[in-house]
Amino acid sequence: MANIKEVAKKAGVGIGTVSRVINNSGYVKKETREKVEKIIKEVKYYPNEIARSMTTQRNNIVAFLLPSSLHLFFGELLYHVEEELFKSGYKVMLCNSSEKIEKEIVYLDMLRNNRVDAVILLTNNDIEQYLDNTLPILSFDRRFTNIPFVASDNYQGGILAAKRLIKKGCKNFMFIGDDAQGDNTPVITEVTKRRKGFIEYLANNGITNITNIEYPLGDYFVNPEEIYKMISVYPDVDGIFTVSDAVAYAVIKALEKMNKRVPEDVKVIGFDGGRSFLNLGKRITSISQSPQLIAKAISSIITNFYAKKPIENIIIPVCFSEGETA
Amino acid sequence: MANIKEVAKKAGVGIGTVSRVINNSGYVKKETREKVEKIIKEVKYYPNEIARSMTTQRNNIVAFLLPSSLHLFFGELLYHVEEELFKSGYKVMLCNSSEKIEKEIVYLDMLRNNRVDAVILLTNNDIEQYLDNTLPILSFDRRFTNIPFVASDNYQGGILAAKRLIKKGCKNFMFIGDDAQGDNTPVITEVTKRRKGFIEYLANNGITNITNIEYPLGDYFVNPEEIYKMISVYPDVDGIFTVSDAVAYAVIKALEKMNKRVPEDVKVIGFDGGRSFLNLGKRITSISQSPQLIAKAISSIITNFYAKKPIENIIIPVCFSEGETA
Repeated sequence: MANIKEVAKKAGVGIGTVSRVINNSGYVKKETREKVEKIIKEVKYYPNEIARSMTTQRNNIVAFLLPSSLHLFFGELLYHVEEELFKSGYKVMLCNSSEKIEKEIVYLDMLRNNRVDAVILLTNNDIEQYLDNTLPILSFDRRFTNIPFVASDNYQGGILAAKRLIKKGCKNFMFIGDDAQGDNTPVITEVTKRRKGFIEYLANNGITNITNIEYPLGDYFVNPEEIYKMISVYPDVDGIFTVSDAVAYAVIKALEKMNKRVPEDVKVIGFDGGRSFLNLGKRITSISQSPQLIAKAISSIITNFYAKKPIENIIIPVCFSEGETA
Repeated sequence: MANIKEVAKKAGVGIGTVSRVINNSGYVKKETREKVEKIIKEVKYYPNEIARSMTTQRNNIVAFLLPSSLHLFFGELLYHVEEELFKSGYKVMLCNSSEKIEKEIVYLDMLRNNRVDAVILLTNNDIEQYLDNTLPILSFDRRFTNIPFVASDNYQGGILAAKRLIKKGCKNFMFIGDDAQGDNTPVITEVTKRRKGFIEYLANNGITNITNIEYPLGDYFVNPEEIYKMISVYPDVDGIFTVSDAVAYAVIKALEKMNKRVPEDVKVIGFDGGRSFLNLGKRITSISQSPQLIAKAISSIITNFYAKKPIENIIIPVCFSEGETA
């Protein structure tokens, strides 16, 4: 295998120039760069990437920690994050934490040890004590002290849902969802604002008789039987907003069992959007988050980490997603 | 931050012993190992992982190249592959190739450059010329010369589907699916055997009037309108086996439009299983692949790569998955 000396000799430049081309650092004339790149290809020189990362202190690897890529929305987000980061030259390492904090800590250690350059954190765990805000960590849907975050405009999502249910003539409202709860302690995430936006908008319109059902966010596979037990004691409810499409799906199944027609008798709005088209029956009316825009926001923050540019939190707009359930 | 010397001093051992503990190489007495590990934790020593990987020539990173993690089965497989490999100490780097061969080549180059230690390849592209069988590459659902592969028992899946449709009294059979076609050239994958098992079992039972519809495997989001055009010209068909649940879903939608009841008028069997429970309406009767078992098989091959043990191809059994469409 060729080495850097041969490349330098053939290109008629110094080793330093070849190194700058490889590491994309420092000034190299366009023609010189092209010449060096051509020779690198010709002689099939594969720079030792590990040695290289020792010089640049970079692997261009970003670890994405999420509870489960099986969750439809998280899986969609993962797809777009990988696509966006790849465009900017970064590779994504996947960690399904399954809500286990020990697994998350492994990846945070890799960040400390320079095995990955940045961490995207999507977690419901009580992990704040393990975070070091001098390191490039970015959080989705949750605020930690001095850690930049990206979130959808959850509060606005709650308002959009309330508006639609009012418009459709609902009289008895229900919210189903809860603050996140990881492996231990309950934590407050940005998701809480879905409920807050919904309830406050209704209150501002003089509506206060709102049934509030607590349902743990961590349970991504929602059991319709469990939901049935929770909601069947409220037969008068005619407008339901749920914390996610997964919960909305279970609600619709539970309503079937209660002999309620959706949307004729009860209107149901979910949250997440996207792949609810997978449903064979009805498309869930939903507040849609954009995994593409979230991925772009995450990628721009990661790029700013690398460029040592200032980082800003980013809130992504949501939109009403027409369906057949409200 | 503590360094390796301090750890060695506190533990009363040589630097070489600490290094062997960190790199898990060579013999270290159990008590000594535990002592060193305890002190590493106490003094918060984070060994420089990059320097470490220069010694061991390992990153413990496995790249998983797949067309799209949005595909329900591939997404499920990805989840389990990450879980299984994590248990064995490996991290997964994700590459959604989106069927682009250039993107796949980037990761194969990373393998050559020792930035990743192994590649799991799930591709429909004409990539054989870029593969180097001296490197640890493992293929799913496809055979390449001298590259180990893992696949579900697709042929048996075809037989199971044929048996069920015969048992349910079907008279006019159809298969919908096709050989994979990546960005260019058609390629033959193990998936072909779904059709083969189906058609050969029917033929062995004297049934040869089988309508064979070509549908490109690469199209993971199947349009029911397109399927409608293909199947509505065969109104007598009463037993359909499809190459995937995604196609089965579109077939069921198309049959609705043809005013055919499923399963009363037409029986439909898909392939993949797993998350078709997501469907709000009917659960698709399917031939189920086990992403858990496939992930275990992949993990065992990766572990054998590392241990330089002999590698065997692995075929994973499939099973009939009861549903409401056949």
